[in-house]
Amino acid sequence: MRSLIDITDFSPEELQELMDTACDIIANPEKYQDSCRRKKLATLFFEPSTRTRLSFEAAMLELGGNVLGFSEASSSSVSKGESMADTSKILSCYADIMAIRHPKEGAPYVAACNASIPVINAGDGGHCHPTQTMADMLTIYRECGRIEHLTVGCCGDLKYGRTVHSLLSALTRYEGIKVILISPKELQLPEYMKQDVLDKNHVDYVEITSLEEALPQLDVLYMTRIQRERFDDATVYERLKDSYILTPEKLESAKETMRILHPLPRVNEISVKVDDDPRAAYFRQALNGKYMRMALILKLLREAEAGLQMPREDTLDNVLYCDNPNCISSVEQELPHRFRPTNPATGEYRCIYCETKKHKKN
Amino acid sequence: MRSLIDITDFSPEELQELMDTACDIIANPEKYQDSCRRKKLATLFFEPSTRTRLSFEAAMLELGGNVLGFSEASSSSVSKGESMADTSKILSCYADIMAIRHPKEGAPYVAACNASIPVINAGDGGHCHPTQTMADMLTIYRECGRIEHLTVGCCGDLKYGRTVHSLLSALTRYEGIKVILISPKELQLPEYMKQDVLDKNHVDYVEITSLEEALPQLDVLYMTRIQRERFDDATVYERLKDSYILTPEKLESAKETMRILHPLPRVNEISVKVDDDPRAAYFRQALNGKYMRMALILKLLREAEAGLQMPREDTLDNVLYCDNPNCISSVEQELPHRFRPTNPATGEYRCIYCETKKHKKN
Amino acid sequence: MRSLIDITDFSPEELQELMDTACDIIANPEKYQDSCRRKKLATLFFEPSTRTRLSFEAAMLELGGNVLGFSEASSSSVSKGESMADTSKILSCYADIMAIRHPKEGAPYVAACNASIPVINAGDGGHCHPTQTMADMLTIYRECGRIEHLTVGCCGDLKYGRTVHSLLSALTRYEGIKVILISPKELQLPEYMKQDVLDKNHVDYVEITSLEEALPQLDVLYMTRIQRERFDDATVYERLKDSYILTPEKLESAKETMRILHPLPRVNEISVKVDDDPRAAYFRQALNGKYMRMALILKLLREAEAGLQMPREDTLDNVLYCDNPNCISSVEQELPHRFRPTNPATGEYRCIYCETKKHKKN
Repeated sequence: MRSLIDITDFSPEELQELMDTACDIIANPEKYQDSCRRKKLATLFFEPSTRTRLSFEAAMLELGGNVLGFSEASSSSVSKGESMADTSKILSCYADIMAIRHPKEGAPYVAACNASIPVINAGDGGHCHPTQTMADMLTIYRECGRIEHLTVGCCGDLKYGRTVHSLLSALTRYEGIKVILISPKELQLPEYMKQDVLDKNHVDYVEITSLEEALPQLDVLYMTRIQRERFDDATVYERLKDSYILTPEKLESAKETMRILHPLPRVNEISVKVDDDPRAAYFRQALNGKYMRMALILKLLREAEAGLQMPREDTLDNVLYCDNPNCISSVEQELPHRFRPTNPATGEYRCIYCETKKHKKN
Repeated sequence: MRSLIDITDFSPEELQELMDTACDIIANPEKYQDSCRRKKLATLFFEPSTRTRLSFEAAMLELGGNVLGFSEASSSSVSKGESMADTSKILSCYADIMAIRHPKEGAPYVAACNASIPVINAGDGGHCHPTQTMADMLTIYRECGRIEHLTVGCCGDLKYGRTVHSLLSALTRYEGIKVILISPKELQLPEYMKQDVLDKNHVDYVEITSLEEALPQLDVLYMTRIQRERFDDATVYERLKDSYILTPEKLESAKETMRILHPLPRVNEISVKVDDDPRAAYFRQALNGKYMRMALILKLLREAEAGLQMPREDTLDNVLYCDNPNCISSVEQELPHRFRPTNPATGEYRCIYCETKKHKKN
Repeated sequence: MRSLIDITDFSPEELQELMDTACDIIANPEKYQDSCRRKKLATLFFEPSTRTRLSFEAAMLELGGNVLGFSEASSSSVSKGESMADTSKILSCYADIMAIRHPKEGAPYVAACNASIPVINAGDGGHCHPTQTMADMLTIYRECGRIEHLTVGCCGDLKYGRTVHSLLSALTRYEGIKVILISPKELQLPEYMKQDVLDKNHVDYVEITSLEEALPQLDVLYMTRIQRERFDDATVYERLKDSYILTPEKLESAKETMRILHPLPRVNEISVKVDDDPRAAYFRQALNGKYMRMALILKLLREAEAGLQMPREDTLDNVLYCDNPNCISSVEQELPHRFRPTNPATGEYRCIYCETKKHKKN
C-alpha cells in the first residue's frame, strides 16, 4: 500500500503531478465532486490540531466522500495500551484511507506498515508534516508561477521549526533555489539540516540575523513564530522579538512580486496590517492546503486500487537501538528497533521511524 | 456577507418569512432534502453545547448538506492564541456557512466581520442566543396560531436568563403583547431590560412573585430554571424554590389553550408529571428549533449567493473602552474597541461586541 | 419502538436472520449502499469507546446514511443534570436511530423507554454490550460454518469479563455447545452465571486452570485480558500471567480448524507472532462487528417503520429498591425503582435496569 509519511516519499515529478491536479480541481471543482463517493477518510488525531483536521475533512467532503474519526486521544480507548499496529489494522476495517496525527515520531509510519489502506502523515511530533509542505509548495507555484530559480527567505525559529525543515527538504530538489536563513543566533538552522539537506544538494544559502536586510532580495518570505520558551534568557527574547515581526513599514523595501507565507496560526509575528497587502499569501496558503489534500487523497486511493505497494527496504532489526524519547519505538514495547543504512562508507544508519542517526561498527 | 448575531438583526417580516419557511419544511420535507447538497456547515463550538450543536447538525443533514467542526476548544489548536479574525478567515476556506458558540460576548460578531461566509451566533456567553429565540417564536406561532395579542408569562430567573431577554426583545415588536414577569425579588428583570425593551416599546407588563396567581391569565408560560448559586442566602433559596416548580396541581387553574415553553435542559422546575399534558410544548419546541435552523441556513446561504452584505455602521474606534471582562475585546489584544452611537442626545454609545453602555462627553 | 438492550432481546431465529443479512451485505455491498439514505444515526457516547463508535459510524455510512453525536460526555451539556429520559426525547428530534454508550447500567434501557426512535445499547457499564456479542457470533458462524455442536473455550478474566458473560448467554441457546472455562481460581466465572445461564440451559461445562490442557479440544478459543488490578496479591499475578498468554508454541497442540477470538483491544495476552496464523480470527472479528451493526441498524429501522413496539412487561414500581451503585437508578432521582418478577415461586425479582436480584416476601 502506498502511503505518505515524508514529503520526499514523492519525487519532484509526483509533486508536480499533485500540484497539477490541485490546479485542475480549483479550475473545475465539479469534475471532482463525486470522485470519492462512498469512500471514507478516517482522521485519527491522537493530539488536537483543529486546522489540519478540518482541512482534511473539507477536502474529503468536497470529493464527495465521508469522514469519521476522533480529534483527541487522551481519553480514547484507542490509546489505552493498544499498539499502533493493532489500531491501524482495525481502522482498515472502517475506512478507505486514513490521516494520522500523533505526538510520537514515526507513529504514522508504523500505521502504514500494518494498515491495509493508505496512510497519510498529518504530523508526527517534531518529525514531519508533509501536507503542510504540500500547501507551501502549491502556494509558491501558484503565486510565483514556478518553483525553480527563486530566492526564498526563511525567518524566525529555524532551529525547531519543523515546517521550515520540510520545506527546505522539498525545495532543494528544484534548480536555482537560493536560501536566506533569517534568525537570531539562538534559533539558527541545525547543523544536520545544513549538511544533509543544503550542502548535500549544493544549495546556495546565507545566514543573517536581519529581516530588513534580507527583504529586498526575496521572492518568497516564509515566516514562522519565535516562542519565548525557546530562550533561556528572557531579556534576550525581549530585545530580539520585534525585529522578527513583519510590518507594513518593513515591507516597503520588498519586491512587489514577493509573497509572504506562514504555516499559521500566527500570533503577532505578522502584523494584521499586512493582511490586506496583495503580497500576503498566508490565507490563500490555507486554501491551497485543502486542494493539495484533495489531490493527495485522489492519488493514494487510485494507487491503492491499482494495488501499488510501498517499496521493501533493506533494514537492520534490533541491532542498533534508538534512544530518542519522542520516537514511537520508545513507547511501543513490541516494535522492533529498525534502522536503514544511509551511508555504507561510514556505517551510518538512521532509525526508520524518527531518522535518529547511529553508527554501526563493523 | 449577511450573518445572524442578534435576533433583532432580522425584521419582524424576515422572522415571519423564516417561520413560513419552517412550516413549509415541516409540511414538505422532501422539497428541501437536497437544498444544501455539497454545502458544508462548520460548527465551531468553543464551549460545549451538545443540544444546540446537534440541532444545527441535524438541520444541515436534513437539507442534504455536510457538517464538520469541533465541539470543544479547550485543547483545540484553534484556541491557542489565534485571533477570532484569523480563525474565521481560515474556516471560510473549509465551509460555506458557520455556527459559532463562544464563551466571550461578541466573538461571533468578530467572526462575521472577517469571514467570507455567513456566520450564525449559536450563543456568545450571556449575550445572545438568537436561534433559541427563533425556536421559541416558531413554537408560539405554531401552538397559538399567532404571535400578536398574547399574554406571555416569563417565570424563574429573569435577571440572568439570557433566553428570556432575547424572547422579550423579539416579542415586543408584535402588537398587543402583555408580559407578566414572575420571579422572586432577587431575580427580577434588570432595569435596563424594562427601560430599553419594555418601556421603549410601550409594552404592558406587570411584575409579580406568585406563579399560581399569574397562571390563569396566561396564553404562554415560559419557564426557566432558578439556580441555587444565584442566592447569597441558601435559606432564601430553600424557601422559594418550590413555588417556581410547575406541577399538574398548579396547572389546574391554567387555560386549556395555554402553552408551556422551556429552553431546556430542565432539571426539576417542571415536574415530569406535566410532560404528558397537551399544554407541555417544550419537547415540540426542541423540534421547532431544528426547523428554524434549517430555514435560517437556507436564507443565509441564499443571501450569500446573491451577494448581500451586512450594512456598514457608523462607529467610533478606540475612543471609548469596554470594561466588560466577558467581552471578546477583553481577550483579543489587536481588536479595536468599537462603539456605536445609540442615543446622540445623551451621548450614549454601546460596545459593538457586547452592548456595554458608555457615555461620551462632548 | 423495538430496541436492542440485551443480546437475548433477540430470539435465536432473529439472530440467525441478522447473520444472514450480514453475510448478504458482505457478498453484495452495493445492494445496501443506499439503504439508509437520508437517515441519521446518533452516537451518544457518554464515555469514550473509539472503536465501538467508529464501527457504528462506518456501518451507517456504508448504508448510505449520516451520523451525528458526541464521543465523550464529561463536559457535554447533555450530562449537566439532564435526565436520560429528556435526553432521549430530544435526540429523537434529531436522528432516526441512536446508539448509546453509558457508564451506568440500564441507561440505554431508560432511553429506549422514552425515545420515539430505536435505541441500541453500545455498552452500559459492566452490564451488557450486545453488539460485541453479535460480532462474536457472526465470527464463529463464518469461521466454523455453524454455531451448534462446538467446544468453546473462554480464557482469562471470566469473573469480570462482560463479553464472556454475554457470549455464554447467547451460545447456550444453541444445541450441543460444550464450554471449557479456563482461568485462574481468582477470576472464575461467577456462581450466578453458572447457575442462571449454564446449568439452567443444561450446558456441558468444565472449569480448568490450564490453557495448554484445554487447547487440543477447542473449536473456538475466546481470549480475554487478565488485568493486574484484579489481584490483591501482585506476586500471584506475576506467577500466573504468562500461562494465559497465547503464543505460537502453545498453539501447536490446537486443531488446525480452531479459531481464536478476542474482543480487542489486546495488550499482550496474544503474542503478535500469532497474528499471521490463519486461526487468528480477531481482526476479521472486528470487521464482522461492522457488518452485524449494519444488519442491526437495517432491522431496527425497518421495524420502526412498521410500527413494531417493545412488549409491555408486568413490573413492580417503587416497592423493591435497587442498591447497585452502578445502576442508572442510583443517579437519576426521578426514575422509579422498577423490578420484573423472574421466579414467582421464590419471590425473586430483578431490577429492570441492571438485573440486580431481590426477593420480595409475600
